[in-house]
This record gives sequence, structure tokens and C-alpha cells, in this order.
Amino acid sequence: MTHRVHNFNAGPAALPLPVLELAQRDLLDYAGSGMSILEMSHRSTLYEQVHNQTIADLRELLECSEDYAILFMGGGGQSQFALLAMNLLAPDAHADYLDTGSWSVSAIREAQKIGAVRTLWSGADTHYDRVPMPHDYEVDGSAAYLHYTSNNTIAGTQFALPPESGDVPLVCDMSSDILSQPIDMSRFGLIYAGAQKNAGPAGVTIVIIRRDLLERCPSGLSATFNYAELASKNSLLNTPPVFAIYMVGLVAQYLLDQGGLEAMATRNAQKATLLYETIDRSDGFYRGCAQPHSRSLMNVTFRLPSEELEARFVAESIEADLIGLKGHRSVGGIRASIYNAVPLESVQALTTFMTDFRQRCE
Amino acid sequence: MTHRVHNFNAGPAALPLPVLELAQRDLLDYAGSGMSILEMSHRSTLYEQVHNQTIADLRELLECSEDYAILFMGGGGQSQFALLAMNLLAPDAHADYLDTGSWSVSAIREAQKIGAVRTLWSGADTHYDRVPMPHDYEVDGSAAYLHYTSNNTIAGTQFALPPESGDVPLVCDMSSDILSQPIDMSRFGLIYAGAQKNAGPAGVTIVIIRRDLLERCPSGLSATFNYAELASKNSLLNTPPVFAIYMVGLVAQYLLDQGGLEAMATRNAQKATLLYETIDRSDGFYRGCAQPHSRSLMNVTFRLPSEELEARFVAESIEADLIGLKGHRSVGGIRASIYNAVPLESVQALTTFMTDFRQRCE
Repeated sequence: MTHRVHNFNAGPAALPLPVLELAQRDLLDYAGSGMSILEMSHRSTLYEQVHNQTIADLRELLECSEDYAILFMGGGGQSQFALLAMNLLAPDAHADYLDTGSWSVSAIREAQKIGAVRTLWSGADTHYDRVPMPHDYEVDGSAAYLHYTSNNTIAGTQFALPPESGDVPLVCDMSSDILSQPIDMSRFGLIYAGAQKNAGPAGVTIVIIRRDLLERCPSGLSATFNYAELASKNSLLNTPPVFAIYMVGLVAQYLLDQGGLEAMATRNAQKATLLYETIDRSDGFYRGCAQPHSRSLMNVTFRLPSEELEARFVAESIEADLIGLKGHRSVGGIRASIYNAVPLESVQALTTFMTDFRQRCE
Repeated sequence: MTHRVHNFNAGPAALPLPVLELAQRDLLDYAGSGMSILEMSHRSTLYEQVHNQTIADLRELLECSEDYAILFMGGGGQSQFALLAMNLLAPDAHADYLDTGSWSVSAIREAQKIGAVRTLWSGADTHYDRVPMPHDYEVDGSAAYLHYTSNNTIAGTQFALPPESGDVPLVCDMSSDILSQPIDMSRFGLIYAGAQKNAGPAGVTIVIIRRDLLERCPSGLSATFNYAELASKNSLLNTPPVFAIYMVGLVAQYLLDQGGLEAMATRNAQKATLLYETIDRSDGFYRGCAQPHSRSLMNVTFRLPSEELEARFVAESIEADLIGLKGHRSVGGIRASIYNAVPLESVQALTTFMTDFRQRCE
């Protein structure tokens, strides 16, 4: 039997085992074509079916109407930091940002290279231990868009609901919690997400944009960077990252089979609750990093009484086949990433280890 | 036994069967890690080994010194049409281009959005049936770079040697013939190549840049688009397209095992010769599209006496498990793409079919 560990990687991250098994089975001969999906023309009927079914399945999962275009792009989520400003931020306009951590900071820095940016709120003063509440900032309606990061993988915080943006188009970096729970698409102008946490492997970024915003995309922009051009060509302007899209399609099909995003939300809440309860009931041995109302259901961050104990925790967890628990190098501590594809059994294995480790150390 | 066709796709294209078999074998558990390469952190030691070994193997294959940085980027080769100008073409400078077909035209169009461009030579007047000879154009030494497309997949032409560029840095779109034969790296300032013809699957673009040119990259450019930033971070600035790079690494290792690029050049010449001889000895039934001195060893383009016969040729070839022979939709005719991974046996199957088809039709 294949050896499989408990995978708590922050991204690229665990994929559903049935998805990997399908990909493995078909790797030399996809759908009786006599070739691998890796060898197939992106102009072939067979690939176009994969491409369009993937879009259709994402649309169904997200209850996303045809008012929005769903695009596939390369370059990773971070490329979008610049691309969204290049597409949506006119020279005479400004964009508003909420700063909830490292990825927000990068998004702001890259947008500032393109145009004028205001930071409406920043959590920097409290080490990004929370996301803003509605009364914490004010939207005056003048911005080209309001940008936020829905889930912060490093700090371990997450918006429970999208922030208020009034009539300003809401732009969301949803890289680390897309497809983890239902969302109200009508709240968003643009969503982008690197696939490599909940939606598939690294190598493709999903961009969902309300079609009226496509009118803003400047014609002088390079074709492969232009959302409007990509939308008009159904992301087949040039060769797309075929295999990564195929994998996103397999994941989407798997999520539909599992009951869709309602079912995933239930399961994800169950996993996170188990983990946070283990932290909160440890008499202070484990201390959660995020303020309770801002806790992430995707990345559970916590500290131990000392850095020495944290190092020992990480070393012993690896021995127990619990992989990827070391916190981000910029903040230290422990981080358990429990995206869609991490099964409850893995979280149970982790909490059992945590309880045992605490007993041995106290 | 797995059903495998003869794959003449223009790209994405055939991959070596042993490479696919390795990828399939390891898809659920890479190197005893208990996880798929698709699930692995790009900051893990195991992935960094894959990443660095892939670079080292490409360096060995191309006899590429440390004077050059080897980068991995997403977005496809066409993104480089803009990115190379964004990085290398200063506002007060101009770039020179050789126009040898559709991809050159796109490269010129995208560069014109960034800065000043001169077209030194164009093959448009003769339907791109040849590449320029050294006396066909003049390089005056004033350009930021000279850009050319080494192999033209649509017209079926190829430069036998890199064009003269004097002291001007030579920039080459080598998407469709990289790794197909040895090259003299010292001739080039920058080479870029989407992987999906000779080097791997779609989803990663290889960029090889002489390090002194990195000084030109403007600091105001988005980090993920900036060659200098990527070089300083060894292409690990953000999550790279992990699986596509892993596949390029498997292909590079396979090519080294096969004897490197000298061996590939011999094999590719043998395949192309067989095919062109079949065309040239058909008493005019098959007519090559490219002028003989410009013929591509990668994409063999030819016509039949009528479009009706061409349609019948394509339909019957598919019945014979010969896939991907229809010419590009912009020019019609027949195109056989015979990249590295297309075995001699596939070309023999094609020439046998061609001889048989001709006998039946004449």
C-alpha cells in the first residue's frame, strides 16, 4: 500500500486522494485518446471539454452566474497583485486596501508600482492578530476598488464575511480559502486565487471577474495580461497550464460529489473546532495566535511555552508522520493548514499528538 | 497494455514514455515522502532538490555557464513577448526584430505596446516560406536587443544557425526547438521557451538570461515580472509551477541519459530527413511549404494536390492512429511536429502511410 503522511502543508498542499488516483490512472492514456493529458493540444476537442467542464463545475460550486467570467492564468497569485491594478486602476484613480498581513502588504506594494493606493486599515500594530470589523474603517465610495485578503495564511486569521465596500467593487485575494465554504458572489467585483491550497496544484490562478469591469482593461496592456482579452478567448489566447487546469477540474468534480461547498464548510468547521478546542483546553500550554473572532478555519496558528518546545514539537511531529507544521519563517510558532483535502482523521491524529506531547512536557 | 498513438501534436506535444511512466509511478508518493510532488511545499528540501537539479541538468545539456541565470516562469511563452521588453527595453531605446511568421508578429505587436520597435526583415511577402540569410538585413548596433524566433511552428521554417547580431544582445524565442540540438550559448543574451514542445508539459516557461542584462530590469517592475528579482530568488520568489518544473527535470534527465543534445540532433535529423525525402520523392504529390534551406527539423509542413485530398489525408491518418497532422488553422495543409519525444517509429509509420495514401490517390 502506498505510504501517505498527514499533510499540513500551507501550500502547495494536500490533494484529495481519489483525485490523485484518477490522475495517476489516466496519466498515460487520457479518456482512451492514446496520449497523456500532458501531451494533448490545447486546441483539441478533448482538452476543450476538460477546460469548459472545469469552468462549469467551478461555476456550479460557487453559484456564480454568467455575469462573471472565470479565467485561468499562470504566474501565481502574486502576479495578480500587479495585474489587477494594471487592469482596473486607471491613472487618475486610486484603490483602497485593507492590510491584514504579509500578503496584503505585498499586494499593496505591487499596486503602488502601478497607481495610487490608500490603506484604509492595517493590523500591523497588533501583529496582524485580527481582521477589521465593519466599524474599523470607512469606505468613501471614491476608490476604483477595495482589495482585501480573505484568509491570511501566516497570521492565521480569516474574514468570517466579506468586508463592506458599498458601491466600490470588492476585489479579493481568495487564494487560501476559495472553495472552502459557500460565498455570495454578488458581493464581489473580482476574486483571484492561486489554486495550490484548496483548488488544485500550483501552476494556475483562477480569476473570477464581473463582466462590466472588463471594460476598464486598457487596450495597451499585453494580451496575455489583459483580463478582457482572456475573457474574450475563454483563457485560450495562448497555451494555458493544461495539467493544472485538469487537476482543478478533478478537484471540482470531487467537491461536487462530496456535496459541494456547504458540505465542505461543515467538514472544515468540524476540523477547525477540534483543533481550536485542543488549544483552548490546554491550560495555556498551547496559545492561539489569532484573536478568537478572527480565527482562520484554514490555517490554525499557535505557540508553545518556548521556542525550544516548538522546535521539539515540530521534530517529533515529523516522526509521527505529521508534515508541514512549522510556522512561517517570518513569525515562527506552529501552523496547521487544514484545507479541504486534509481529512478529519489527520486533524484527529494531530490533536492526539498535541495532547500526548503536552502531557509529556508539562 | 496501454494504448498509445503516434503523436504529431504541435504543442503541447509528445513526452518521452519513460518520463510519463516515472511520473505515474511516483504520483501518490514522491521519493518516499508519503505525498505527491503535487502536494509538496515549494520551500521543502525535497522540492528544492528537484528545482535545483532541473536547473543543473538544463545547464549541462545546454553547456550553459554561470554567466547565465536559468529562470522558471508561468504565463506561457507569449507572456515573454511583453516581459522581455518590459525588462530590457528602456524608454529612450529601441529594439530590432526579425519577422519570420505569426509568433514573430505577435512578439513585435506586444513589444510595440512597451517601446520603440524596428522590423529589420520580414518574410511576409513570401508567406514566411524562409528565414533571412545574413545578407538580408543589417544590424547597426544601436538596438537594445535583436529578437528572432528560432523555429516557426506554423510555416515550418527554422534558423540553421543563430542570426548575426554584432554587439547587440540576441534574444531568441526558442519555444519550439530548445533542447533539440546543441547551441552555442555565448551567442545569446536571452533565450525563452515555453516548455510544451521539447522540454516538458505546458505550464512553465524557461528563461535563460546573461546576468549582465539583469542590470537593465527596472526596479519599478512588478516583482514576479522582474527577471532580476526572479534570478536573485532562484525563481522561488513565489510558488512556482512545481509539477511542470518537475516534469522538465524528468525530461532533462531523460535527454542526458540518451546522450544529450548531440544525440538528439542526430535523431531529429534522421527523422526529418526521412520525412522530407518522402515529400521530395513523391513526384510533386506532396509539396513542402518551406524553402529547402529554411526547412524546420521540428515542424514539417506540406501540401497535397487539393484541399479535399488534405482533408481526406487528415481523416485517414487519424484512423491509422497518426494524431495531430492537420496544419495550423491560419494556413491549412499538413503539419507533422516531430519534437524530441516523437520516436523514429512514429515517423516511419507516417511515411509508410504517406506512401500508401499517395498510391491509393494517384
